[in-house]
Amino acid sequence: MAEILCLNGPNLDRLGKRQPEVYGHTTLADVQQLMEKEANRHGHTVVLKQSNHEGELIDWVHAAADAGTPIIINPGGLTHTSVALRDALAEIADGAGFVEVHISNVHAREAFRHTSLLSPIAAGIIVGAGTDGYVLAVHATALRLAADRK
Amino acid sequence: MAEILCLNGPNLDRLGKRQPEVYGHTTLADVQQLMEKEANRHGHTVVLKQSNHEGELIDWVHAAADAGTPIIINPGGLTHTSVALRDALAEIADGAGFVEVHISNVHAREAFRHTSLLSPIAAGIIVGAGTDGYVLAVHATALRLAADRK
Amino acid sequence: MAEILCLNGPNLDRLGKRQPEVYGHTTLADVQQLMEKEANRHGHTVVLKQSNHEGELIDWVHAAADAGTPIIINPGGLTHTSVALRDALAEIADGAGFVEVHISNVHAREAFRHTSLLSPIAAGIIVGAGTDGYVLAVHATALRLAADRK
Amino acid sequence: MAEILCLNGPNLDRLGKRQPEVYGHTTLADVQQLMEKEANRHGHTVVLKQSNHEGELIDWVHAAADAGTPIIINPGGLTHTSVALRDALAEIADGAGFVEVHISNVHAREAFRHTSLLSPIAAGIIVGAGTDGYVLAVHATALRLAADRK
Amino acid sequence: MAEILCLNGPNLDRLGKRQPEVYGHTTLADVQQLMEKEANRHGHTVVLKQSNHEGELIDWVHAAADAGTPIIINPGGLTHTSVALRDALAEIADGAGFVEVHISNVHAREAFRHTSLLSPIAAGIIVGAGTDGYVLAVHATALRLAADRK
Amino acid sequence: MAEILCLNGPNLDRLGKRQPEVYGHTTLADVQQLMEKEANRHGHTVVLKQSNHEGELIDWVHAAADAGTPIIINPGGLTHTSVALRDALAEIADGAGFVEVHISNVHAREAFRHTSLLSPIAAGIIVGAGTDGYVLAVHATALRLAADRK
Amino acid sequence: MAEILCLNGPNLDRLGKRQPEVYGHTTLADVQQLMEKEANRHGHTVVLKQSNHEGELIDWVHAAADAGTPIIINPGGLTHTSVALRDALAEIADGAGFVEVHISNVHAREAFRHTSLLSPIAAGIIVGAGTDGYVLAVHATALRLAADRK
Amino acid sequence: MAEILCLNGPNLDRLGKRQPEVYGHTTLADVQQLMEKEANRHGHTVVLKQSNHEGELIDWVHAAADAGTPIIINPGGLTHTSVALRDALAEIADGAGFVEVHISNVHAREAFRHTSLLSPIAAGIIVGAGTDGYVLAVHATALRLAADRK
Amino acid sequence: MAEILCLNGPNLDRLGKRQPEVYGHTTLADVQQLMEKEANRHGHTVVLKQSNHEGELIDWVHAAADAGTPIIINPGGLTHTSVALRDALAEIADGAGFVEVHISNVHAREAFRHTSLLSPIAAGIIVGAGTDGYVLAVHATALRLAADRK
Amino acid sequence: MAEILCLNGPNLDRLGKRQPEVYGHTTLADVQQLMEKEANRHGHTVVLKQSNHEGELIDWVHAAADAGTPIIINPGGLTHTSVALRDALAEIADGAGFVEVHISNVHAREAFRHTSLLSPIAAGIIVGAGTDGYVLAVHATALRLAADRK
Amino acid sequence: MAEILCLNGPNLDRLGKRQPEVYGHTTLADVQQLMEKEANRHGHTVVLKQSNHEGELIDWVHAAADAGTPIIINPGGLTHTSVALRDALAEIADGAGFVEVHISNVHAREAFRHTSLLSPIAAGIIVGAGTDGYVLAVHATALRLAADRK
Amino acid sequence: MAEILCLNGPNLDRLGKRQPEVYGHTTLADVQQLMEKEANRHGHTVVLKQSNHEGELIDWVHAAADAGTPIIINPGGLTHTSVALRDALAEIADGAGFVEVHISNVHAREAFRHTSLLSPIAAGIIVGAGTDGYVLAVHATALRLAADRK
Repeated sequence: MAEILCLNGPNLDRLGKRQPEVYGHTTLADVQQLMEKEANRHGHTVVLKQSNHEGELIDWVHAAADAGTPIIINPGGLTHTSVALRDALAEIADGAGFVEVHISNVHAREAFRHTSLLSPIAAGIIVGAGTDGYVLAVHATALRLAADRK
Repeated sequence: MAEILCLNGPNLDRLGKRQPEVYGHTTLADVQQLMEKEANRHGHTVVLKQSNHEGELIDWVHAAADAGTPIIINPGGLTHTSVALRDALAEIADGAGFVEVHISNVHAREAFRHTSLLSPIAAGIIVGAGTDGYVLAVHATALRLAADRK
Repeated sequence: MAEILCLNGPNLDRLGKRQPEVYGHTTLADVQQLMEKEANRHGHTVVLKQSNHEGELIDWVHAAADAGTPIIINPGGLTHTSVALRDALAEIADGAGFVEVHISNVHAREAFRHTSLLSPIAAGIIVGAGTDGYVLAVHATALRLAADRK
Repeated sequence: MAEILCLNGPNLDRLGKRQPEVYGHTTLADVQQLMEKEANRHGHTVVLKQSNHEGELIDWVHAAADAGTPIIINPGGLTHTSVALRDALAEIADGAGFVEVHISNVHAREAFRHTSLLSPIAAGIIVGAGTDGYVLAVHATALRLAADRK
Repeated sequence: MAEILCLNGPNLDRLGKRQPEVYGHTTLADVQQLMEKEANRHGHTVVLKQSNHEGELIDWVHAAADAGTPIIINPGGLTHTSVALRDALAEIADGAGFVEVHISNVHAREAFRHTSLLSPIAAGIIVGAGTDGYVLAVHATALRLAADRK
Repeated sequence: MAEILCLNGPNLDRLGKRQPEVYGHTTLADVQQLMEKEANRHGHTVVLKQSNHEGELIDWVHAAADAGTPIIINPGGLTHTSVALRDALAEIADGAGFVEVHISNVHAREAFRHTSLLSPIAAGIIVGAGTDGYVLAVHATALRLAADRK
Repeated sequence: MAEILCLNGPNLDRLGKRQPEVYGHTTLADVQQLMEKEANRHGHTVVLKQSNHEGELIDWVHAAADAGTPIIINPGGLTHTSVALRDALAEIADGAGFVEVHISNVHAREAFRHTSLLSPIAAGIIVGAGTDGYVLAVHATALRLAADRK
Repeated sequence: MAEILCLNGPNLDRLGKRQPEVYGHTTLADVQQLMEKEANRHGHTVVLKQSNHEGELIDWVHAAADAGTPIIINPGGLTHTSVALRDALAEIADGAGFVEVHISNVHAREAFRHTSLLSPIAAGIIVGAGTDGYVLAVHATALRLAADRK
Repeated sequence: MAEILCLNGPNLDRLGKRQPEVYGHTTLADVQQLMEKEANRHGHTVVLKQSNHEGELIDWVHAAADAGTPIIINPGGLTHTSVALRDALAEIADGAGFVEVHISNVHAREAFRHTSLLSPIAAGIIVGAGTDGYVLAVHATALRLAADRK
Repeated sequence: MAEILCLNGPNLDRLGKRQPEVYGHTTLADVQQLMEKEANRHGHTVVLKQSNHEGELIDWVHAAADAGTPIIINPGGLTHTSVALRDALAEIADGAGFVEVHISNVHAREAFRHTSLLSPIAAGIIVGAGTDGYVLAVHATALRLAADRK
Repeated sequence: MAEILCLNGPNLDRLGKRQPEVYGHTTLADVQQLMEKEANRHGHTVVLKQSNHEGELIDWVHAAADAGTPIIINPGGLTHTSVALRDALAEIADGAGFVEVHISNVHAREAFRHTSLLSPIAAGIIVGAGTDGYVLAVHATALRLAADRK
Repeated sequence: MAEILCLNGPNLDRLGKRQPEVYGHTTLADVQQLMEKEANRHGHTVVLKQSNHEGELIDWVHAAADAGTPIIINPGGLTHTSVALRDALAEIADGAGFVEVHISNVHAREAFRHTSLLSPIAAGIIVGAGTDGYVLAVHATALRLAADRK
């Protein structure tokens, strides 16, 4: 019954096209379908958005904060650099909560990808499970919503 | 007689709403009123803007540089991460000057908030005085303008 | 149809007893039930073991490597300190793969908990989702096994 | 109606004499006059003291703690090195509060001046506004006292 | 016969205006003329764009990746901070390649300018040759294209 | 009337034999006698155990946590490396408390001995007093038990 | 029969007054009584002094060095910053020896309190046992004096 | 005529099986034969043991210390993490001495493998010579024993 | 009309032979021909030298400083280690200037190759353009000489 | 004809008494005689003072700044910790200049003695020549005064 | 049947003379004899050279690279500082291979001796076995040559 | 009666020519005259040599070690980089001793000039006294020789 917002940061519009040896061949549209299927299993729906603009992502987070919508976010390269995005998500963290997803295993890549500014305030972090990570994030969100209802 | 430009970075549109235990309940509209009152005491006016987009803030700084307008800036999360914003403000620093304001005491928070890329070129830095910091920044700018006139 | 081995490191026998404000009240027996339920949904089974002895955990990993069993591991405090456990799991990483689970959000705790020696070779990492993380790890393993079968 | 104590650390007796290209030509006596004028505007008074002895500054802080007097402090070189002064001021921080002032922009100088042991517990930090910083500190203290009365 | 895309990041619209003691008096329009002249010598053309918005630069990189266009980029302040821009350019690096240009000698300036997130994947880096660096980048690109044709 | 558990980590079975110039000639049996004498003075008893196995020490800590027994621990080399032992002792720290003892002055030895993972949660730390440190730890525990009774 | 000198550094005159949640309600006068009682048990006496002036503490250490008096010192904030005090105590370290005491568990507080310049040359270090630490320090000194007599 | 003890740490029971591209196909049984052949050339014998348990390795080191047996040790992952093992071997270092062996070139692998806690007290370190390293360690021990006899 | 001196440091005599996968198959003789062709286009000549001896390179730099000859230098491994070579080139930097060339992309290789002692004083730095970098360096030098003539 | 002020920081009153194996047996009175003899050779006189109080040393530096007196200073432990003393000496550095002396070779001792806050502004630094260093400092000052007269 | 080249870097001509407490009394001539004896046992010969000149060592490495000669090298102080020597040896590493030898246990000495620029590309590293290390290096080379022949 | 060897490292042949604003206009020939005059005052003589080749400097140090000649050395850029030169001088340090001289105040220049590999073993270090430093070094050597004769 809840709407879950899935936000995707810079370059994720290239999913399935950019560096397929790292990110696989699944596109963002494929991801949306997989997420919806999992959400439906729990009685929820998913809205998926993508932007290369930090400011637009922040605007979307603000709107979700006002609406009380839980978020699943793959922040792309902003993970490691955007204090502004973290500050926006801090409002979600105090409310409906957000799950952070990374398709590739960031800990097996360059050192600057090992630290996330968002992780310390996330309600769950799923790394390196490929695009399955989005499905697991829906599952995680559904379990959290169920627990909150109790 | 001077116009002072007050720029506010990402998430400051949430002021009074986001983490009130850190930032208080005053909104950006309240801030503008307090600044105008202080500016009037010195014979100046204040224009206040806010954006979640780094690029838009830079555009505004460029316009101020052309107009010779002094700036008061609360750069939000960009404080710690935006070399681009610093490079834009460097032109102001060589001209009308800018004052950096932080509402909360950033030195009492996470380590990544302890360093500002902007501070080394600011004409004044006011930290941790709450939203009063904006009023003090107007006062500081007025004193600087008065000294420059001598 | 696959057997999944769930290994738990030092102090996880205290789950539900030790620092419940951090780890919750669920016990390891409860966890096993939740995992089995999720595994059954995918046609798999789960075996759960716990030890406070690094050497015993390594012995179990070796046995799993010989049997080709996928692993779900919550290594507890060994996460940050055991090169020996990593070296054992490297064999699994080259074979059936392992998912790393942390109940609490380690990135929101002491700095020495922010780095995992195991993560760079994991087939998935799930952090901060509480004991739900074990269920998600079964889900992740099931999806990976399904993908491998294709 | 309140008395505000303005403490000045080592070498500030040289103000107007030492490195005028960094600190300007205003003397500490001039500063006192400017502070009194601003304090009077808010109905307060200012007492200004200076010492080159860390121990004497700490004694003065203790006396202020007993009297409930708010402090404005320019700690000079002790800013970066004196845990003892910080420990003394911690009592003020829990009570009437103190504002930290630096005449020059310490962030534009040597790296060892970039960190202040006092800032994390200050009720306001004013940096790089020249001797105007003392006036702004009085203004900041007056606003804080007014807010506390509400 | 190839089209070369020259991208310019934040503040480069101020070229010839901002800090001329660091960047000289040549404007971006002048740069375009010099680049075209050099490109023509090799039978190529140049398209030059500038934006203060990280997201817009990324969008342009994506379009170039689709078109197989080689890039010359002066990323301005984003050089040191944008993992997102690097991730976008990684696709170019696997294809037509890009040359990174810095007008000033970044190694002779502040420490935070000494590290580039882009350099490890560039097909050439030209630093500190003033606006001549753009001409050299065209030359470099022409030589690379010629070598690729062989 | 209380039983105090004294745990000794790896190599302390060699006390009096290993590096006597660092640790002296007193054996662990001698230590036990000295501790018992001091404990008797306060009406308590002491049980002393030693193991070279991290897992066994953790098992003993768990048993003490269940029994509400205060601990005195000389963790030997595990002091600097065992997050798992710390996690076990965290339960004691929330209950009956533990005192950490080091025979030699670890701060005067190799740099890797200067940091203890256990100290931040200890109810007392006694370093460099030789085997007398065990006696002092009994004294400290007795004083704490007396204070708790009040 | 020996006289033991107990030195207390900056702010310890505030004991029982400053941050009682960290340091407790016992005053320095209370401490002196507890120390004397323990000293008498061993046939010794205690002289207790306090100063906020580093120089005065050093003068007292020099006098003790001349008299061959063992020292118990709680250096307060100077612990982490005073090479000069360490150099003075080095003479004691080569002679009658000194025990370093910290009331609070400095390892559980700010990072700058984790390192002591004095510890490497102390004859014993007692941390985090509250004001009982002073009593333990007398006990430790008495045991050392007894051992030296043998 | 001497007996040489060859100890092998965690995962070395997998030799020839685990990551053969790093460690080769030789098994620990093969290694033992090669060592015995080399030992016989010098008139010595070799006993080879392996354990995944740190505590068991320490027990074996203690026994060797009592017997005056020289050791050859490949500590596996404990090399980089076990202060306890180092402390045990310190007794050997003061007596019959030990040689540290690593099959792979640890300096060409992950950064956490570049530092050994054992090396500073070893009587010889042989790295990156494959399983030949064990043979060289026997040779080194034989030469040292011969020199000691002189 | 100007003579340009091209200096090559240790191992560049192996160009075309050593690690061709990193440095390509072009030899230093080939490089000289390519440089001469580019120099002729601008009316200049090139002299190319190579030495494996730091001292000899410094001698050559001194001679160039006396003659006012601009330098192009590929310092090889001395880039990262020779303060002495930098000190010699500082004289050129104050006079005719030098361009630093690296054939491979040093930023994509080992960390110790990421820092150059020479770059902060170079009049241009060209990295990762293969042996084309030498041609670009001639071009850069010619443009600088032309600008200096104006 | 000039008066040279020789200042000595904390613990130098113990010279000849404290750690003679590091500092020798010469007393401060002996030093004064040696300095006077060397000063007389150049027609100058020496005044020698010592204090354990940072504030008193700063007061003396201020007086010397007013009188235009050159200083020779052995700051003892304040060398490494006192920004306040450096700030006082900065006035001397801009005027008559000061020479920094260390009796022992501080670079051969603990790491915290390797950095001096004063050295960057000294007109000469003499380290590790024993008490002869004071004589050399007089010689250095005399040569500087002679050069200034020209 | 193979010729093995043994290169020795700066100061090794002083072997047996310089710091005998660190390096022993054996001279380089003695070393050559021991190596020859061991080489003969395997049917090989040894040529030993020494130079204090980095450039000369590099020249010798180049010659060996052309001849396909395996190298044993004790690079002396160049171990820690010479990227140029590493680059030369990289050619050997891709061919006949080299073994790195250090007479003393560099890990037990100053920190700057703990890192070797050469080790990551060596075919074997032998440290701290005294001059026996050269003999072991011949043995290691012989075993490698034998393995290569298979 | 003693001969003192004054060695000068890379680029010191340029003294008086290179960067006169840093090093002054005095040449090495002038320095030699000043040193001889000072040496004669003490009954000694001076031999001055200069080389840009590290190896040649080391050869000269070896010869001095054999002859028992004290050294004064200005190592130029090798100060910060040459472990080989340090190792050579270690023999002098155990014998006749050496004084290290730097003309400029290296502590006021780039960070890489703040650390000297030679200082920890020098018998005296004289920094920042200009070319007078050489005279002071002769004086220091004469005083040391006189003391040794006693």
